[in-house]
Amino acid sequence: MGLHMRESKDIPPSTAVMLMRGKGVARGFAIGRAIIMGAATLEVAHYRIATEDIPQECARLDAALETVYNDLQHIIKNLPADAPKELTPLLNVHSLLVSDPMLSEQTREIIASRQYNAEWALSTQGQLLADQFSLMEDEYIRERAADVNQVIERVLRVLSGMGSSLLPDMSPDLDINSSIVVAHDISPADMIKLRGARFAAFVTDLGGATSHTAIVARSMNVPAVVGMGNIRSLVRDKDMLIVDGEAGLVIVNPSPLILSEYQQKQDAYIRERAELIIHKDEPAITLDGKKIKLEANIELPHEADEVMHLGADGIGLFRSEFLFMGRETLPDEEEQYEAYSYVLKTMQGKPVTIRTLDIGSDKTLDGEATVAANPALGLRAIRYCLSRPEMFQTQLRALLRASVHGKLRILIPMLSHMHELHSVKQAIEFAKNQLAEEGHAYADNIELGAMVEIPAIAIAIEPFLKHLDFVSIGTNDLIQYTLAIDRVDNEVSDLYDPMHPAVLRLISQTIQAGERAGKEVAVCGEMAGESRYTRLLLGLGLTEFSMHPQQLLDVKKIVRTSHTNALRSKIATALNHAEYIDLGILEV
Amino acid sequence: MGLHMRESKDIPPSTAVMLMRGKGVARGFAIGRAIIMGAATLEVAHYRIATEDIPQECARLDAALETVYNDLQHIIKNLPADAPKELTPLLNVHSLLVSDPMLSEQTREIIASRQYNAEWALSTQGQLLADQFSLMEDEYIRERAADVNQVIERVLRVLSGMGSSLLPDMSPDLDINSSIVVAHDISPADMIKLRGARFAAFVTDLGGATSHTAIVARSMNVPAVVGMGNIRSLVRDKDMLIVDGEAGLVIVNPSPLILSEYQQKQDAYIRERAELIIHKDEPAITLDGKKIKLEANIELPHEADEVMHLGADGIGLFRSEFLFMGRETLPDEEEQYEAYSYVLKTMQGKPVTIRTLDIGSDKTLDGEATVAANPALGLRAIRYCLSRPEMFQTQLRALLRASVHGKLRILIPMLSHMHELHSVKQAIEFAKNQLAEEGHAYADNIELGAMVEIPAIAIAIEPFLKHLDFVSIGTNDLIQYTLAIDRVDNEVSDLYDPMHPAVLRLISQTIQAGERAGKEVAVCGEMAGESRYTRLLLGLGLTEFSMHPQQLLDVKKIVRTSHTNALRSKIATALNHAEYIDLGILEV
Repeated sequence: MGLHMRESKDIPPSTAVMLMRGKGVARGFAIGRAIIMGAATLEVAHYRIATEDIPQECARLDAALETVYNDLQHIIKNLPADAPKELTPLLNVHSLLVSDPMLSEQTREIIASRQYNAEWALSTQGQLLADQFSLMEDEYIRERAADVNQVIERVLRVLSGMGSSLLPDMSPDLDINSSIVVAHDISPADMIKLRGARFAAFVTDLGGATSHTAIVARSMNVPAVVGMGNIRSLVRDKDMLIVDGEAGLVIVNPSPLILSEYQQKQDAYIRERAELIIHKDEPAITLDGKKIKLEANIELPHEADEVMHLGADGIGLFRSEFLFMGRETLPDEEEQYEAYSYVLKTMQGKPVTIRTLDIGSDKTLDGEATVAANPALGLRAIRYCLSRPEMFQTQLRALLRASVHGKLRILIPMLSHMHELHSVKQAIEFAKNQLAEEGHAYADNIELGAMVEIPAIAIAIEPFLKHLDFVSIGTNDLIQYTLAIDRVDNEVSDLYDPMHPAVLRLISQTIQAGERAGKEVAVCGEMAGESRYTRLLLGLGLTEFSMHPQQLLDVKKIVRTSHTNALRSKIATALNHAEYIDLGILEV
Repeated sequence: MGLHMRESKDIPPSTAVMLMRGKGVARGFAIGRAIIMGAATLEVAHYRIATEDIPQECARLDAALETVYNDLQHIIKNLPADAPKELTPLLNVHSLLVSDPMLSEQTREIIASRQYNAEWALSTQGQLLADQFSLMEDEYIRERAADVNQVIERVLRVLSGMGSSLLPDMSPDLDINSSIVVAHDISPADMIKLRGARFAAFVTDLGGATSHTAIVARSMNVPAVVGMGNIRSLVRDKDMLIVDGEAGLVIVNPSPLILSEYQQKQDAYIRERAELIIHKDEPAITLDGKKIKLEANIELPHEADEVMHLGADGIGLFRSEFLFMGRETLPDEEEQYEAYSYVLKTMQGKPVTIRTLDIGSDKTLDGEATVAANPALGLRAIRYCLSRPEMFQTQLRALLRASVHGKLRILIPMLSHMHELHSVKQAIEFAKNQLAEEGHAYADNIELGAMVEIPAIAIAIEPFLKHLDFVSIGTNDLIQYTLAIDRVDNEVSDLYDPMHPAVLRLISQTIQAGERAGKEVAVCGEMAGESRYTRLLLGLGLTEFSMHPQQLLDVKKIVRTSHTNALRSKIATALNHAEYIDLGILEV
């Protein structure tokens, strides 16, 4: 332990002022001293072994894999009571990876066939696996390549006799409350330990909005900036840092002027949060008396607790796929029933919108994986579910059974064709009939809705609205398909633009078609939670927003100071001419 | 030669009647006897070699590669005068592949490191390369995986001492005019020889609409059905076959009744073609007096000759990327100028619409290839050109210089953002200024247009129309993005649907916006050339169609028997309600 910590006593902190940009994934400000975590990629020896040494090298590999597996199991079994619940599935993923034959057997095969030493063989196989993950379409899954790297790293450290953790030693004089962890990447196992120590902020070279660092930092209410590229090699231990988790900024060795500016920002932010929470139980009504529904997007059942605490109007999006990930088998009906029931009960009759499984054929964990040339245009979400009727029936039965515990709304992802909608309705009827025969109860007020995330349904929505109770616009995907942009593709991500007039027209048309048909239209994509778009969406006629729980209070504040009709008339002309709208004109 | 031909004297033709479906890629009917071409994938010996044999094995590989390279060079240098011009670039691709270090060096590396024999090492590396190709986004490029396989196959045959060709022996009693070639796949080198012999039809296991077989069959006016899966293993030499190149049908050992039915179909088809050609110079005017422009899509300059012969109104789409493929360096300004000038001169003042380079970053042949997770949503077409200003300037300069030879229209692919259009206009101005300074002339009536193939531009087209002279709807991509479908992905290709109400609305809205702005709107996707959609497009208000030259006369016939206004009113209601349109109601 501590082997990779910089020798801070010998090298003084640097004095050069630097401003570096990354991706802000957890809001807030932190001011404190850097504490550097060890390298994420070890330099390991590469050499060829003699034929007669192959069995011995394989045994060395097996022993290291077992050590890491046992370590992880130990961590899982001894999780502190206050550990974030998000970490358990992540730790399970690591456990699975380290015991996965893809890793162990293939690595042994490389040792035997190419006569590489265990470290070399493991890095080779690890790179291959990580490459496969990075081909995946879903942003979340793609970031799981980091898991592979983290697991490999742990095994390599054991092989090299270094111990498996990257955590620095905690010197007794360290004030962790003002210490900012700077790391290449942080594994969930390390996260557990870091969390216990309550650091002031996290800054990492790797990662994105759904990396572990992001998830845990948000649950800790601690700012985090990820995707810095190479900050670990530029910052020294004990350097003074300012972390701006909203702007995605890290300032190294700030001048006294900048420091005092950020101290004020930090104070203001804390005051603002305290103020916002006071209004949590007040209704979200505009100045001209329009009631706006503010709901929450969640990924795990227990997040419903926080949603209730924040006074949300319901769950606008429960991404059920989180239940399906990081495991070898599909969750059975009982397990799903428990999860859905928990959320429905917790929400005490407020609407709970549960999206059916939104994964692609490339994402299944049951060994059927194939890589499509364009997975985003492939067999995904409802297309995939309709091709796996048994799996879909299991989920529908669990949903229907849970419906007796609250107000359930079932949400279909990636719907684009009427015949798909008819198939879904048939599948639901089939499940209902079976449940009735078996004597299971289900509610009679279950609503059925669809994501509007493929341009086709937004453009020709009338027939769909006849057969649906509500729709929810998934702006992230809708923007990607409308602009033919993969926003995680760095080469074109600058073309991703929620303000493109085509996007705003589709949102506006969908809302208007919903008004004409008397069906509710929500937005559950990122736009709904970014407060700079709140007035725009109100002006497009939106009355139902669903977002990350932490964004609810900010959006509510804007709703309560907006005048919907004034906003509608302000943007009408630009919308008619398909021109860009200046967000500035929407401010009060 | 002939080693892989079935021993037809020993095995009698089968008698079972079979009807098999593939993809019809060249129209017409053929009735004749099967002639089977050898296996495309050899069973080659896989064994490990001793360390001391590595140099010798590498030398064996090098010799085989050189033999194949020399063979191909010999074929290229001795091309018959009437050989289809399309074959030259394809043969060049094969030459390049066989001399590509990716193939030779990597294979030697496998021989050395894994101690595989040359055949095994070559198959291993070939599979890897073919896998990479099949990840590519463009249908055409993806099919180039077949080139890799064909080249590998040739080298493997040489390594095994079999000679490099797959062609069957031509027995003297063979009536090639009624012989139907049945093959796993046909390489361009074999195609040259087959063409000399003028077979009645081609049927292959592999291939798609842009495979060599398809391209050459169309240029020979011979029917072809590709993508049969495994027909080669089901049909025997001298089996009687009926090939329906439109329906994509192959009937093996037809009954006398079916045979006589198809003889009638064949006669009718020949009569129909003869009749159509009579009307080639008559104008395409509807019964209610609306003049419709019928133009052609071409890929190679010399195709303009046929277009003129068929009396088309112009070139609606010249895909310039064909000039850029199958070569190691980009074509220089002079070479492009010659190609564009040839087409403009040939068309004698009729409009020639040349699309700027429509390739993606994954398709460059200059070694910069990266594989995006979703290349169809990545850096493609105009996005790519704007990121490579020098390459784009070369093409623009060549286009501008050629403009003095006719009526040039420049067409921008994949446009989605206004700032991209402004950048293109700046690039054109820059090229014009430079040319003027250098004393080069260019026409002053060059028109600028954009492909409407991304939903965003169709949905918010008004600002674009202000800055463009015309637009051309690329239905293939527009459908794919609107429905979020990759149609070459077998798992979802059944969801690809030109009749989806959202697609028809986008086409209709684009045409109407064009009418309001006084700008021409064409369709140059496959829908424009499929005569079953002609009345539908007329009913949507379309007045400009661009298609494969061979489709011109069929579409003209339908135009001349249609009543545009009647069609418009017939589809108005369905379009208003976003309902499916029954093509049947549009028939006269």
